[in-house]
Amino acid sequence: MKRIKVEKKLLSSNQQIAEENRRFFKEKGVAVFNLLSSPGSGKTSLIERTVSHLRGRIRTAVITGDVQTDRDAQRIAQHQVPVKQITTGGACHLDARMVKRAFPFFSMDELDLLIIENVGNLVCPAAFDLGENAKITVISIPEGDDKPLKYPAMFRISEVLIINKVDLLPYTNFNLGQAIKFARQINPAIKVFETSCLTGAGLEDWLSWVEEWVKQLSGTAKK
Amino acid sequence: MKRIKVEKKLLSSNQQIAEENRRFFKEKGVAVFNLLSSPGSGKTSLIERTVSHLRGRIRTAVITGDVQTDRDAQRIAQHQVPVKQITTGGACHLDARMVKRAFPFFSMDELDLLIIENVGNLVCPAAFDLGENAKITVISIPEGDDKPLKYPAMFRISEVLIINKVDLLPYTNFNLGQAIKFARQINPAIKVFETSCLTGAGLEDWLSWVEEWVKQLSGTAKK
Repeated sequence: MKRIKVEKKLLSSNQQIAEENRRFFKEKGVAVFNLLSSPGSGKTSLIERTVSHLRGRIRTAVITGDVQTDRDAQRIAQHQVPVKQITTGGACHLDARMVKRAFPFFSMDELDLLIIENVGNLVCPAAFDLGENAKITVISIPEGDDKPLKYPAMFRISEVLIINKVDLLPYTNFNLGQAIKFARQINPAIKVFETSCLTGAGLEDWLSWVEEWVKQLSGTAKK
Repeated sequence: MKRIKVEKKLLSSNQQIAEENRRFFKEKGVAVFNLLSSPGSGKTSLIERTVSHLRGRIRTAVITGDVQTDRDAQRIAQHQVPVKQITTGGACHLDARMVKRAFPFFSMDELDLLIIENVGNLVCPAAFDLGENAKITVISIPEGDDKPLKYPAMFRISEVLIINKVDLLPYTNFNLGQAIKFARQINPAIKVFETSCLTGAGLEDWLSWVEEWVKQLSGTAKK
């Protein structure tokens, strides 16, 4: 009982900071998405492909959340994009306060897009709003097509589902139609992209969508 | 601060029940392992191969933990083995109390091995002792070879590491030597198996080890 009370309090305090973050992002004209997945679904590779494509057109920065190490941040930094690593030191998700503490590391007035890479975890991050404009869940082919049914919360709250590593389709028993059907049972409006960061398949559609989405959210706020 | 206190209390109460479970398992002569991994690493397939191999030799039962659905339990039940599904309804890990509540569903006196399949999550389950004799972490090739560095807690507390889906090695940039090196940096004593439930590669070694391990722990306790 006590645990539930403390958790409720924690979540409502998180929600308050998330709303502050959201107002701040809006004021600065920065579009923000929160990238969610299991460990090893390819979030970092997808971010690498995305920031490299957007360079010169959409001013992008990245926050990467990890339990340990700054390996992801190092990979992304190679693309000459501002990156701030948040090492949670054991915590299984990012919360709104951690994200807020990262703000001083960026020149928010000079950004159009902030990508937040959450800790690899298909359960806990679903409960923590960070103030983002959209949650994007990534699953990958080798994880199996039943993940939407088994971890429904993540799919319910996501605007977009990226099914990554489609290059591995021939070597697994993943049923693409079934995965999409399961995801839409839980969230009929979810937008789906099928991608491979190895072969580049499907990336064009995803990147066009990001560009359009950022322009709608931030485009008119800056000169 | 308050959160930390409540969490410490929760963990110590979990530890107490875990010790009770451990005593109970010992008394009954049941060897127990706790299978940990990200969603989609192949825990359920590995269990299917394991129980099917052990049939007639080692009397085995399975507890499967899932946030939602009993899909895993259904898959395992096809192998004519006692299965109890624990649906955590949102919780990101099994705890000792949930496992204890499942005891009445089994004839413990007639078991040699209990396999506990934890919720797919590479972070939170590491903190919750269930009373098992060994923790076994499964990672799969498509997740990438850096997982031991990024999620060290899980590898530190595991006796065994199973690197699964080795059939996908030719289609990824996973470096097997490097993954094992990283795991041993964190846990020098960890025992490693390389398996594929699709091709059967490496399963023989794993299954011999299980059989030997169960015999050592439970063999003399029963007739």
